[in-house]
Amino acid sequence: MPRDKEILALNAFDPQAPASADPELRAALERRMRSFGSSSVLFYQEPIRMVRAEGVWMHDADGRRYLDVYNNVPSVGHSHPAVVEAIRRQVGMLNTHTRYLNDVVDSYAERLLATFPAPISHLVLTCTGSEANDLALRIAATATGGTGFVVTETAYHGNTAAVTDVSPSSRPGRAPPAHVRVVPAPESYRNPGEDIGARFAAAVAAAIADLQRAGLGFAGLLVDTIFSSDGVYADPPGFLAPAIDVVHAQGGLFIADEVQPGFGRTGTAFWGFARHDVVPDIVTMGKPMGNGFPMGGVATRPELIDRLTADTKYFNTFGGNPVAAAAGLAVLDVIRDEGLMDNARVVGGYLMDGLREIGNRHIRIGDVRGSGLFIGLELVRDRDTKTPAPEIATDVINGLRDHGILIGAAGPFGSTLKIRPPLCFTRENADSVVSAIDAVLRRLPAA
Amino acid sequence: MPRDKEILALNAFDPQAPASADPELRAALERRMRSFGSSSVLFYQEPIRMVRAEGVWMHDADGRRYLDVYNNVPSVGHSHPAVVEAIRRQVGMLNTHTRYLNDVVDSYAERLLATFPAPISHLVLTCTGSEANDLALRIAATATGGTGFVVTETAYHGNTAAVTDVSPSSRPGRAPPAHVRVVPAPESYRNPGEDIGARFAAAVAAAIADLQRAGLGFAGLLVDTIFSSDGVYADPPGFLAPAIDVVHAQGGLFIADEVQPGFGRTGTAFWGFARHDVVPDIVTMGKPMGNGFPMGGVATRPELIDRLTADTKYFNTFGGNPVAAAAGLAVLDVIRDEGLMDNARVVGGYLMDGLREIGNRHIRIGDVRGSGLFIGLELVRDRDTKTPAPEIATDVINGLRDHGILIGAAGPFGSTLKIRPPLCFTRENADSVVSAIDAVLRRLPAA
Repeated sequence: MPRDKEILALNAFDPQAPASADPELRAALERRMRSFGSSSVLFYQEPIRMVRAEGVWMHDADGRRYLDVYNNVPSVGHSHPAVVEAIRRQVGMLNTHTRYLNDVVDSYAERLLATFPAPISHLVLTCTGSEANDLALRIAATATGGTGFVVTETAYHGNTAAVTDVSPSSRPGRAPPAHVRVVPAPESYRNPGEDIGARFAAAVAAAIADLQRAGLGFAGLLVDTIFSSDGVYADPPGFLAPAIDVVHAQGGLFIADEVQPGFGRTGTAFWGFARHDVVPDIVTMGKPMGNGFPMGGVATRPELIDRLTADTKYFNTFGGNPVAAAAGLAVLDVIRDEGLMDNARVVGGYLMDGLREIGNRHIRIGDVRGSGLFIGLELVRDRDTKTPAPEIATDVINGLRDHGILIGAAGPFGSTLKIRPPLCFTRENADSVVSAIDAVLRRLPAA
Repeated sequence: MPRDKEILALNAFDPQAPASADPELRAALERRMRSFGSSSVLFYQEPIRMVRAEGVWMHDADGRRYLDVYNNVPSVGHSHPAVVEAIRRQVGMLNTHTRYLNDVVDSYAERLLATFPAPISHLVLTCTGSEANDLALRIAATATGGTGFVVTETAYHGNTAAVTDVSPSSRPGRAPPAHVRVVPAPESYRNPGEDIGARFAAAVAAAIADLQRAGLGFAGLLVDTIFSSDGVYADPPGFLAPAIDVVHAQGGLFIADEVQPGFGRTGTAFWGFARHDVVPDIVTMGKPMGNGFPMGGVATRPELIDRLTADTKYFNTFGGNPVAAAAGLAVLDVIRDEGLMDNARVVGGYLMDGLREIGNRHIRIGDVRGSGLFIGLELVRDRDTKTPAPEIATDVINGLRDHGILIGAAGPFGSTLKIRPPLCFTRENADSVVSAIDAVLRRLPAA
């Protein structure tokens, strides 16, 4: 069964494979490889030359249109006019750092902080979710005196050195560093009827004990509250609570990585942690925060910030610049004014129903799970063995592309389709996805 | 003599000091502290409420105008129309990641890579200089198998955990981590007549030997090629070469941090390393790259990237987005079309001449040094002892603010004024700076 290293290849361009027959694409690929080499990560064996996008649609250089079910960064819709206008206005006025006062960043901070439960009342603005998680790890280590962290086994939390250490999915085939313990994701599909919360809490407790035995001290539990890279695990709401109790009983902090589930995507709450009725010590944010404008952030309790700043100077040159703040404000406005969280709940539920309905006809659809517009569709060889089927996921990803639909996969085997479109997704868009998946699965050879 | 921790206080707002008499400013400060708390870093005891900026000018909420001699991010000028227009155009069209092909990012990569000597032919785009240095450290460690780095004693290279480890100025009063060795900056003022290159190379050699004795292995030397945080050391050109020879002889890599000196600021070369006629193994970039749009990058040899990507997956969500690339292209266009590198050389030289001229009349001006529009003016108690005078630097910083000029300080004692205005600075602007410094120093009580 392919794992880790192979996942990347599932939907990635392989420069060693035979060259494209399309001369323009071949030239564009050669150009990309000439400047970026092996650091280039491209989707599809015939990568897409993208030129423009609006709402849920992206357009390539050949005039072809794609329904975007993959991209969770342009969360309020590609090129949303309100966000575009906010950036255009502010970028011509002032773009500087936070060593001067500026109303835009203070307005943004107030609006953003108002979305958190009371103890979380302070903010540090960064440029990326990676920078946010990097800082969160230090805040937790400084506050607890511990260095050990617990994460899930296929987690991805970002790309800095410190964050790569706690991102098992970025270190294929390598054991975790000494200060990191991994626990199985709160998997619901292969353990039906089990108490997921109790199981997850027991795994976290064992990992903490192991860190303590090793003399490393326990700093915190860091999880993406929808477990996206682990394969999307949302239910039942509340399953995180017992693990957080364990974390706190052991003197550690709970860092909620909201880079993916945050900003209303899960439909019933603005933040993924809120679905579980827990209060994090630290919350990190990124991707959808500026609808594509680079921005990230850490929200936490004042005393935790104080512990860090007593020890280390932290300043982020671009973090909290007024253009980012203007983009961030516009995103919050659009989510509220267009009712996008509610739309995520309603259309997400409708889409899940549709996928489950065709699931009755396709034995390869093992599970449909998620919350709001963050849905995982797990493909299996058959429903009895529940054997993960990454090869079918690959076929579906490429088949959907032929239907003009962009989608990706996640999970330890790459067998779970990640469905996380812009939040302005409509029922009609959902119908297109369901019927296209149905059509692609119908065309696949019998198991 | 104040060191490290105290430097920050030289020009920083202190929330413990008596509140401002200005009720609007007091309200703005309370608002800032309420959301950002101790992570907030503000300039001046009466911070400035900045509202707009263009070219070399910034404007506050009271309609006051400031000549900007501090900010090296808006390097082609605040709100430059060509950069603003490029961002406005692209942000309404497409803002996505590099997993799709897009001409804008490839055009940018080609233009940027053309500024480097031949072996440096591959690029990784990030969002910040911090992310760039964080990645550069990993590239060097992976390529060499070593974990040890050598940096200068007041260096600043960014804000991630790994980069903070190699940034002594961010860790006031703390010993460097086990894998880091610090060497004195290539100081020219207190060691006249000495061979700076030989001295610096000997210090680097000793540090490498110490890392090797400790069994850590030597990964690389990381320096800002104008030694900004160390107090600005530019001359004589070529002084870096002997140290780089030592680095290579010991199997390490030379990482040139061009976040501050890059993009033409030093006047005679597009990159700071080029003034020293050395070829880095890895170059990192940030601040001025997008004139304020968050972007950074690592340029290096293909085989060094290959070593990293064989080991670790790296992907940067916002890095290389088409809006950043459009901003970056516009910056390169403006530097070329407006002859800004040449302007930096000519106006920078004129400004240094003017500062040296008033230096003849002010015993507190110990040294004027730098290259192009990156100038350090070191203030001393008197010229014989060369005792650093951070208190006079503070007086000058605040005095210049009263003259409507923004400036900051650097160096191990905070006694060196950092002069690094937008590159469109004119002779008239230079005259204003010289006469204002002259006036402020005249008003100071006699030594």
